[in-house]
Amino acid sequence: MSKALTEKLRIIPLGGLGEIGKNMTALEYGDDMIVIDCGLAFPDEDMLGIDMVIPDISYLEANKQKLRAFVITHGHEDHIGSLPYVLDKVKAPVFGTRFTLALIEHKLEEHNIIDAVLHCIVPGDAVELGCFKVEFIKVNHSVPGAVALAITTPVGVVIHTGDFKVDYTSLDDEPIDINRFASYGSEGVLALMMDSTNAELEGVTPSERELGKTFEKVFTEAEGRVIVASFASNVYRIQQVIDTAVRHGRVICFQGRSMVNIARIAYEHGYLNLPDNSVVDIDQLKNYENNRICVLTTGSQGESMSGLFRMANANHRLIVGKGDTVIISASAIPGNERSVGRVINQLFRRGANVIYDRLADVHVSGHARREELKLMFRLLKPKYFIPVHGETRHLYRHARLAEEMGISPGNVFVMDNGNILEIDHKEAKLNGSVSSGSILVDGLGVGDIGSTVLRERRLLSQEGMFSIIIPVQKSTGDLIGLPEIITRGFIYLKDADELIAEAKQYAFDQSVQLLEKHKGPDWTAFNAAMKSAMKAFLLNKTKRTPIIVPIVVDIEL
Amino acid sequence: MSKALTEKLRIIPLGGLGEIGKNMTALEYGDDMIVIDCGLAFPDEDMLGIDMVIPDISYLEANKQKLRAFVITHGHEDHIGSLPYVLDKVKAPVFGTRFTLALIEHKLEEHNIIDAVLHCIVPGDAVELGCFKVEFIKVNHSVPGAVALAITTPVGVVIHTGDFKVDYTSLDDEPIDINRFASYGSEGVLALMMDSTNAELEGVTPSERELGKTFEKVFTEAEGRVIVASFASNVYRIQQVIDTAVRHGRVICFQGRSMVNIARIAYEHGYLNLPDNSVVDIDQLKNYENNRICVLTTGSQGESMSGLFRMANANHRLIVGKGDTVIISASAIPGNERSVGRVINQLFRRGANVIYDRLADVHVSGHARREELKLMFRLLKPKYFIPVHGETRHLYRHARLAEEMGISPGNVFVMDNGNILEIDHKEAKLNGSVSSGSILVDGLGVGDIGSTVLRERRLLSQEGMFSIIIPVQKSTGDLIGLPEIITRGFIYLKDADELIAEAKQYAFDQSVQLLEKHKGPDWTAFNAAMKSAMKAFLLNKTKRTPIIVPIVVDIEL
Repeated sequence: MSKALTEKLRIIPLGGLGEIGKNMTALEYGDDMIVIDCGLAFPDEDMLGIDMVIPDISYLEANKQKLRAFVITHGHEDHIGSLPYVLDKVKAPVFGTRFTLALIEHKLEEHNIIDAVLHCIVPGDAVELGCFKVEFIKVNHSVPGAVALAITTPVGVVIHTGDFKVDYTSLDDEPIDINRFASYGSEGVLALMMDSTNAELEGVTPSERELGKTFEKVFTEAEGRVIVASFASNVYRIQQVIDTAVRHGRVICFQGRSMVNIARIAYEHGYLNLPDNSVVDIDQLKNYENNRICVLTTGSQGESMSGLFRMANANHRLIVGKGDTVIISASAIPGNERSVGRVINQLFRRGANVIYDRLADVHVSGHARREELKLMFRLLKPKYFIPVHGETRHLYRHARLAEEMGISPGNVFVMDNGNILEIDHKEAKLNGSVSSGSILVDGLGVGDIGSTVLRERRLLSQEGMFSIIIPVQKSTGDLIGLPEIITRGFIYLKDADELIAEAKQYAFDQSVQLLEKHKGPDWTAFNAAMKSAMKAFLLNKTKRTPIIVPIVVDIEL
Repeated sequence: MSKALTEKLRIIPLGGLGEIGKNMTALEYGDDMIVIDCGLAFPDEDMLGIDMVIPDISYLEANKQKLRAFVITHGHEDHIGSLPYVLDKVKAPVFGTRFTLALIEHKLEEHNIIDAVLHCIVPGDAVELGCFKVEFIKVNHSVPGAVALAITTPVGVVIHTGDFKVDYTSLDDEPIDINRFASYGSEGVLALMMDSTNAELEGVTPSERELGKTFEKVFTEAEGRVIVASFASNVYRIQQVIDTAVRHGRVICFQGRSMVNIARIAYEHGYLNLPDNSVVDIDQLKNYENNRICVLTTGSQGESMSGLFRMANANHRLIVGKGDTVIISASAIPGNERSVGRVINQLFRRGANVIYDRLADVHVSGHARREELKLMFRLLKPKYFIPVHGETRHLYRHARLAEEMGISPGNVFVMDNGNILEIDHKEAKLNGSVSSGSILVDGLGVGDIGSTVLRERRLLSQEGMFSIIIPVQKSTGDLIGLPEIITRGFIYLKDADELIAEAKQYAFDQSVQLLEKHKGPDWTAFNAAMKSAMKAFLLNKTKRTPIIVPIVVDIEL
């Protein structure tokens, strides 16, 4: 039998399903594998102290000889953020558009990775990667250079939309190439993997261009400085603000690390048009009247180290005050609502006029809503459908929509990270799983924090720590001093003399008793008994349950 | 001069301004004071381990001889939740409607407070409280028994709306008494304090009755069990679900502690109509087909101990599964978006059909939007306006609306908790402040946790704790053993042998050196030097900064 009749295409999502973040999908056929995107996730609020989350790539490591390329759809963190970690373990060339690669280069430099092989493509290009042919198709999104992928495999064409929206009036005058999607659809699409982020929302996502009207109105009315916080990578948004500001005779000042960096990258690569003398440094602002100033900054999510947060809290050279107009040109990402709310409150308190999404059209999403998704289903008419890029509820809503659009329910696969979907000429079916999951990055540690440590951090965060130090004589196991008590995060010590004195006495009495039964050299039983005694004591006195740490110090006398 | 010419009315908000929560406002004139509402706030996410937040009432304690009454507008936690703590310190009779008092009684019983004096009023009643006359005016809100207050003071009438909306088709057939507001307006209102929660939102809040259409549609289409999660205190909502369920031949099962308790209270007081044999216990559900079952439960905010959460996570006798329809009849309160999202994801994963606010009209707010606020401004024509009940941004938006409605900007007061607004026949002005703020409740401790302890909890939560135990001889200050290292929440110890061994060696070397310079009996300098040495060591090795706790154990040999 020929190979094409026995081999199967394997689609293996390694991240991005059941979550917004760390997008990564492997496509495998025979001895060839390509990986689509290589993102990171931001930690959930229960991942205390964690800096970021990257996908488990043990499957890629085990199959690195097959890996032909990383194919990147666009330059957002949830699509490129793991590259420094992944390229450290698994080498393969990286394909992306010019702006995507510019952002990747910047990231790799920060991690001192110098040996990456980057291939720049433009929409319309097609590259052969082993048995796969990958064509890049222009889509609209909230960052320049976003592409979908049309992957011709030995069993048929797989379309991966990447993150996309349909913007007929996009600001770069290059709307999504629906004609190319149409021609793939006419020729026959085996499987579609499509962005599910907005699968809950009816209608269409408005054009980025719509925001121009709001900016024009706000700049017309503003009497003092205008300060705009937005995502730095939304170069279209930044350009609209700049154009409006310049039209109103204002100079531009960039603030916030990622805003300054990404604006520079965008400018250097020709994505940002900055009229001569339009950009000034913060030191020069004193030479301009307030109504000639526009500041572009980070902090649209209320992040505590961001430009806007520091301006609102008088912890920046530029302090927001009466007469200033602040536009927060973003929506709160789920989980950030309170921090965004707090920065808005603080800006009002400082006397600013604050314009945010509840009051005006200051933000549009970069993701397709249901009518746009329907357009893609109609254009592509895929045989199989796998909703990607979304929390579970988005995937299920997207799957239901696919069924409404006529795809047979048996051909719709709501997958989990790690699942293997096998497709051949006859059928598609889920067949087992590979290792997948979340690797936590904390400082220099990659993967050394797991559920035990997180559980301890959670307990410590709730009621703090209560240590009892018990000095004993090594040879006899006898108490040779009074127990000491050390707490952190448990109670305000200056007001708790009485409680601590009682606790010391109780710990002493308990030690004497417990040492009768439980002596070293193995203190496990003693520690457990001591812990349980002190836990009951503290619960009774305070109704709190700190982490209790008995520490036996056995001294050789 | 007569007293009325020298005395001033003092309005002192002690909670609820710049926040959603712990509403409490004192009105004071001469030797008389009344307090409107007595609420609690739920802790911010940075108040680690805190159970709840209550207002600082030191001003009430210092003036308790003046206090004539607590006047409660309705029975939500942010209006009654502090009563057990406050009545413990300051005694005064409590006035409220029947359902409000029923909820208060339940709460006081739980706190074993038996000596409270509760006075039941009905809308239309007026009571004399010292020099104040307080009339209760029916308003619509998301709990039965909500009232506004018309307070006749020696200098004029103050209207406090409480939480309200204008529902012309309210389910209890008692819409807000706009005629009574109108007649106060015609006679002249000195000052208005009005609910600002929805001051950002245009239009009007829909009627609670609108949801009936959604429930009817969902029950008509549902083939298995219908499970509805909502706030227990929204008796109107609960009644609509019950009526729809009964009409569709379903029995009702209440689940979740507050749902069971509040439904019982509402039923006993005649606020909930339960047809004969319509309510069954969880044990009886096995006698009914799935399409004859409706479950009403808590958990609309994704709370981890709630009924819905446990049903979704197979940690309840009733486990959600394929064929079930789940309605989440609420919006996420800011800060709860992720937990609500997680429970929805889990329900989809279990195969349920989930109906939530992004998909259908399953919730309406209990608070007035801008058109309703405008109606009140027009009816009441107050001379002075104080926006209340809202975060800073709501207060400022509401203040701006008041100005648009013709109130002179100088007569609009955006106040902070603790500010004193003095009003006499001539003018109103802010004049100083009283002590106010947040008292944190953690277990049995009320106010014993402050910023120091919270800071320690935050640090512990981020990188954990790293203790170094250093045994020294008391008389000589010499090291008499090897340092021990104890960590919690720092690193997974089983994989960190090498690091811990290095740290021990480093701690030993440092101890030897540092003991040359810094000896006891005061170990402050030694501890500080040890901490800083270990901090640098760990930062270099791990890029993490746990709380470092050096513990010198000095042993008398």
